[in-house]
Amino acid sequence: MIESAHRNDFYITNTQKQHLKPMVTKTRTLSKELLEQILTEARTHSVWLPEPVSDDLLVQIYNLMKWGPTSANSSPARIVFVKSPEARAKLLPCMAEGNVEKTKAAPVTVIIAQDMEFYEKLPKLFPFADARSWFAGNNPFIESTAFRNSSLQGAYFIIAARSVGLDCGPMSGFDNAKVDAAFFEGTTWKSNFICNLGYGDSSKLRPRAPRLEFNEACKIL
Amino acid sequence: MIESAHRNDFYITNTQKQHLKPMVTKTRTLSKELLEQILTEARTHSVWLPEPVSDDLLVQIYNLMKWGPTSANSSPARIVFVKSPEARAKLLPCMAEGNVEKTKAAPVTVIIAQDMEFYEKLPKLFPFADARSWFAGNNPFIESTAFRNSSLQGAYFIIAARSVGLDCGPMSGFDNAKVDAAFFEGTTWKSNFICNLGYGDSSKLRPRAPRLEFNEACKIL
Repeated sequence: MIESAHRNDFYITNTQKQHLKPMVTKTRTLSKELLEQILTEARTHSVWLPEPVSDDLLVQIYNLMKWGPTSANSSPARIVFVKSPEARAKLLPCMAEGNVEKTKAAPVTVIIAQDMEFYEKLPKLFPFADARSWFAGNNPFIESTAFRNSSLQGAYFIIAARSVGLDCGPMSGFDNAKVDAAFFEGTTWKSNFICNLGYGDSSKLRPRAPRLEFNEACKIL
Repeated sequence: MIESAHRNDFYITNTQKQHLKPMVTKTRTLSKELLEQILTEARTHSVWLPEPVSDDLLVQIYNLMKWGPTSANSSPARIVFVKSPEARAKLLPCMAEGNVEKTKAAPVTVIIAQDMEFYEKLPKLFPFADARSWFAGNNPFIESTAFRNSSLQGAYFIIAARSVGLDCGPMSGFDNAKVDAAFFEGTTWKSNFICNLGYGDSSKLRPRAPRLEFNEACKIL
């Protein structure tokens, strides 16, 4: 019995090592230059070059960001790309004063919203279990899941936009209730945050603000 | 006067074009292979190879994710890397039943937390204005900012971990109150979500679940 258990341990170890080898070979760190583009040197922009952003590029961004993980694949984020003068005119009065000019100048302004009935899509999105029933009727759970996961997806959006060479200007300085009244009345969508999108004018950036050190923000236990 | 206005327009246009040129030259889309690594082919893992993750790599992940944008650079996320048998023993009873085995097997389990007094760091993080005063005493604003932005940072964490070749298993199936009692009693930190970290066994993945089509999740206005 002991011998058989040992044999079994040995067998598992070898099998795992076989899996390990190709994985570790595949493992690689993105180059410094690419990490600069998506994170370490990417900046929040407020001044925009007069260069348009095509609808094709917006579809490309969605087709990247949609693959980022969410709880039970719930994918609660909904995205409104504000481009036309009419839509822009509805949005500007909802912005905090300090965000009006930059939003006026951005070629696209994106409302990252959350569908408060996201769970109605779970029969398609999570075919492995009846995940819809985990949420329906449980408002606090619906709200925390929608807010957490649409925020995660907002971050995937920012990374995806930077991945295709665009700059972002994310903002929470706006009146959520006004945006919801102007864009989402009679629907189950609610605004989360807003993000300007385009090609930023790097010459107009202020010096970069510091970040917390590892020891201020992290613990290894 | 009209002539001078025209001259001025012309001058602005040329200046902007000068800015535009180097920007557009710099602009590039990440290769298909790298986008696969961070988004399009990356998967949520539940089965882990017995390959350790060094502390150096954890520091590398933080030093990438910390640059992702947050509201007023508030950076409310706090990260606890659970590695030791003692810390692991405190965490496992907090997990939902379906998340115990995968968490037991992961080389590192990460608690993505939020500091409910994040605004005390704003004099350092946002030296441009007295941003601390925007938050202090305004609990609903503190709570939504901490939750939204620590979630954004959780997504930057996932992308950063994938960027250095690791796999993630993010989970919200655990008891937040139990985790807070076990790890954060007497502090201003609160759990947001949890993420296993390591080298996933790709042979154990189930078929990938679908995502919403562009027209189901997005509108261009």
